[in-house]
Amino acid sequence: MADKKLKIVGWGFEGDDISSEEHEMITSRYRERFAGDFEIRKAPTEDAIKVHAPRLEIPSSLAAFATTEKRDRLVHTYGKSVPDYTRIFDGDFTPAPDIVAFARDESDIEAVYEYAAGANVAVIPFGGGSSVCGGVEPEVGGSYNGTISLDLTKLDKILEIDKTSRAARIQGGIRVPAMEEQLKAHGLTMRHFPQSMELATLGGMIATRSGGHYATLYTHIDDFVESLRTVTPVGIMESFRLPGSGAGPSPDRLMIGSEGALGIITEAWMRLQDRPTYRAGGAVLFDDVFKAAEAVRVICQSALFPANVRLLDADEAYNNGFGDGRQSVVILGFENADHPMEPYLERALEIVRDFGGSYDDGSAKSGEGHRAGTAGAWRHAFIRMPYFKTATIEMGIITDTFETSITWERFPKFYEEVMEATRQAALEVTGQPGSVSCRFTHCYPDGPAPYISFQAKGRHGALAEQWLAIKTKALDAVIEHGGTVTHHHAVGREHMPWYARQRPDLFAAALAGAKDRLDPNAILNPGVLLPARS
Amino acid sequence: MADKKLKIVGWGFEGDDISSEEHEMITSRYRERFAGDFEIRKAPTEDAIKVHAPRLEIPSSLAAFATTEKRDRLVHTYGKSVPDYTRIFDGDFTPAPDIVAFARDESDIEAVYEYAAGANVAVIPFGGGSSVCGGVEPEVGGSYNGTISLDLTKLDKILEIDKTSRAARIQGGIRVPAMEEQLKAHGLTMRHFPQSMELATLGGMIATRSGGHYATLYTHIDDFVESLRTVTPVGIMESFRLPGSGAGPSPDRLMIGSEGALGIITEAWMRLQDRPTYRAGGAVLFDDVFKAAEAVRVICQSALFPANVRLLDADEAYNNGFGDGRQSVVILGFENADHPMEPYLERALEIVRDFGGSYDDGSAKSGEGHRAGTAGAWRHAFIRMPYFKTATIEMGIITDTFETSITWERFPKFYEEVMEATRQAALEVTGQPGSVSCRFTHCYPDGPAPYISFQAKGRHGALAEQWLAIKTKALDAVIEHGGTVTHHHAVGREHMPWYARQRPDLFAAALAGAKDRLDPNAILNPGVLLPARS
Repeated sequence: MADKKLKIVGWGFEGDDISSEEHEMITSRYRERFAGDFEIRKAPTEDAIKVHAPRLEIPSSLAAFATTEKRDRLVHTYGKSVPDYTRIFDGDFTPAPDIVAFARDESDIEAVYEYAAGANVAVIPFGGGSSVCGGVEPEVGGSYNGTISLDLTKLDKILEIDKTSRAARIQGGIRVPAMEEQLKAHGLTMRHFPQSMELATLGGMIATRSGGHYATLYTHIDDFVESLRTVTPVGIMESFRLPGSGAGPSPDRLMIGSEGALGIITEAWMRLQDRPTYRAGGAVLFDDVFKAAEAVRVICQSALFPANVRLLDADEAYNNGFGDGRQSVVILGFENADHPMEPYLERALEIVRDFGGSYDDGSAKSGEGHRAGTAGAWRHAFIRMPYFKTATIEMGIITDTFETSITWERFPKFYEEVMEATRQAALEVTGQPGSVSCRFTHCYPDGPAPYISFQAKGRHGALAEQWLAIKTKALDAVIEHGGTVTHHHAVGREHMPWYARQRPDLFAAALAGAKDRLDPNAILNPGVLLPARS
Repeated sequence: MADKKLKIVGWGFEGDDISSEEHEMITSRYRERFAGDFEIRKAPTEDAIKVHAPRLEIPSSLAAFATTEKRDRLVHTYGKSVPDYTRIFDGDFTPAPDIVAFARDESDIEAVYEYAAGANVAVIPFGGGSSVCGGVEPEVGGSYNGTISLDLTKLDKILEIDKTSRAARIQGGIRVPAMEEQLKAHGLTMRHFPQSMELATLGGMIATRSGGHYATLYTHIDDFVESLRTVTPVGIMESFRLPGSGAGPSPDRLMIGSEGALGIITEAWMRLQDRPTYRAGGAVLFDDVFKAAEAVRVICQSALFPANVRLLDADEAYNNGFGDGRQSVVILGFENADHPMEPYLERALEIVRDFGGSYDDGSAKSGEGHRAGTAGAWRHAFIRMPYFKTATIEMGIITDTFETSITWERFPKFYEEVMEATRQAALEVTGQPGSVSCRFTHCYPDGPAPYISFQAKGRHGALAEQWLAIKTKALDAVIEHGGTVTHHHAVGREHMPWYARQRPDLFAAALAGAKDRLDPNAILNPGVLLPARS
């Protein structure tokens, strides 16, 4: 694990590539879907990539853990968004950091802050590097003398486990698989699995308000945070470890979602769970997506708290290998470590029947239903998805997702308007119909979190601009119809224009006031959450 | 309702007094509990109370909704804490506001801000007036020319109901009973019932991170807030109405718990629930309070989500009329609007048996268990409790409660140390043993929220100082052993010394930075959350 190196191009670590079967599956899918020929462009090799010489010299205070080595700078230039991929394919590493520092402890972070404040250098915290919205890109405007990407993945220990209260004190740079493996030995799990889990770090998930795999009850990582330890440029902020509190606005909630603009989360006490042993689940078909949504609404208002209640509209289901392209699917899953889940599933199935859902009695009620069959296939595809992006970019296919949330009573119109805006945009921008489909990743008693996938056949050389044109229309529709710009992908640099429309101006002012006190030289992740100084 | 006037002395509205039976019950309880004679002192009548002449003249901009009438100023001088009662009994209304304004709409609030900023006057938001920690007292230090208490209870409308998403847009000044009555007509409820519910306003509950009656899952009001509209001195802040979001730190979470120091919450979209129709519950006895706590822990880690799982230690149970003073009681209640709760109760009873809990099979499994019998008696006493304070103060009895939370693994030592510190303090301060008992008001998977009640026989003329000496020792122990200074009573002015020890210094700095932007003249509730300017 420790020796694994992040790829310069694509998802995951060097050596973890898609199989030839997967490559054939994904490329043939798009050859069938889109008309015309496909020009295949390959990303440049490391040697072929040119990057500007570092504008900074490593000071002696950082010499023990910082580097200006080309490969490290390339790896720390981008996250995993579409424009990240297109610039990598173009060999454009303009935003590359001048220095990459690998913090070994908090004093290393403090040393970086001290140097950065004195030398007028921007510091970009880098955890999993899996941002799909420009959160880790050292694009900070023209007012800094240079940039440091501060890699936190050496802060990768579980420091303490409290089995009684089911909590652990964990360093911010640990990745999800390493964390879960160690927790498993104690019969515990954080049970928070974003699609980025192979790369994602705990601190990064907290800083970006990550959403886990499970659909109800505990969705965002916010709920698992018991306390935080954050290193800011003016010192360390550490909250009491508490099950609940009413003592003023929550200190943790200011740091959760701060995206590296206020400080770096070096440790957290996280709430854990027992590993589930009881399961029940299955898949239900609906002819009408809005009836399916109604069923999901009622299930989510019943306090049954399914682990999964994932609505896939007909196109989304078909694209993921379920159904015939005319029916929507609702995947139901219940999990618990204490008591059997069949009664919960029975009640949920009664509800879906009320709304016209149909299911195969054998598969829907299998105890392993959500791991096997339809639901199991889904789980596998979910984890592999990020690996496919390189192959699609090679073909000139724009594939992206955006995610939002909306209250139930606005959902039907919201769905129609946002889907239509995205479809229109894909057609206008690329000259042929794109594929636009939707699923619910998370559901609340007051509304769903629709997650929209789109694919369009773009033009090499223009992919980034075509992508931006489609995404602009899509997010304009999201904001116009009252949805959030992001349910769990975070804001980063790419979502800032829409975040600015969603966020109350006075909250921006309050946040700026807080940042002034915590980061008085504005060295932390400039341009994220607040405009970079000009 | 609209004609009811708040009492100057004691809980509730004029005319809502305790019965002679209740008076006899409460006074005889303390005559039995404490040795010696009891001097009965009555509070002064309104006529006998002297209050300083207003230092401010009502400006024309406020003339339509502001007053300097004596009774209004007296009612808006204090909340309901012990030192509030003792000063009222002493006829000491030194902190009385110079003006009381009854805002009819947001523009009235803006007019108050404008006047206050120009005239260097502090503005104290006043909702239910039920603060037990000095949250509404116009004690603002010497740097202001005067104070205005800004009463918000005329903002008392439900503006919109969305039955599909189960949410409503509600004004901040509405009291809980009026709100619930209107929601009931739609089959809905917010299902958030703090002990102060007869007086408490929605905006006040949000500003103080109120805790409801129910013990698990949705405890603090935080979870019910879908969006907020807040009037600050620099303008209006309004968040999108969203079921969930990951777009930066939550704007609402900064205002939730801001205790009137950052703005006034004039409207909120609140998440509602269907009215429960299925119930199951009962009471379980334990010989050992720590075994009882273990049972409660396991129930709270099982995802059964009881509406109530209220542990009363032996003294607390006895003081509330249950048991023989040697056994602890765990009150269990399950409620749901969708499906029967008996299976949930059955599983919880299996768990309590594992820890040696015993119960009467008939009463424990009654479908109305938590409303009838032991649990029903509890509910009634809970609501009446605040009415008894006047009678105890008349007798010179100090009765107070404080509430905290702590993780499970620290609970046994925390309980012993905090209880012992409080007992010792009561003995040292009053010369005879006090009564100190504990219950869990709320329970989380990672820890309980212990709520500690103490009664001590004080000395008229010294009650406030005796109370402070006991509470100081108690809260010192709470903070020293890692608990929160308040789980749901809020900070106010009285908890500031301990809040300052609990709150990270850098969060105080961030909060000060936010306040600078939202309340640049520092007119809002000075001394709450942040020190008043000197």
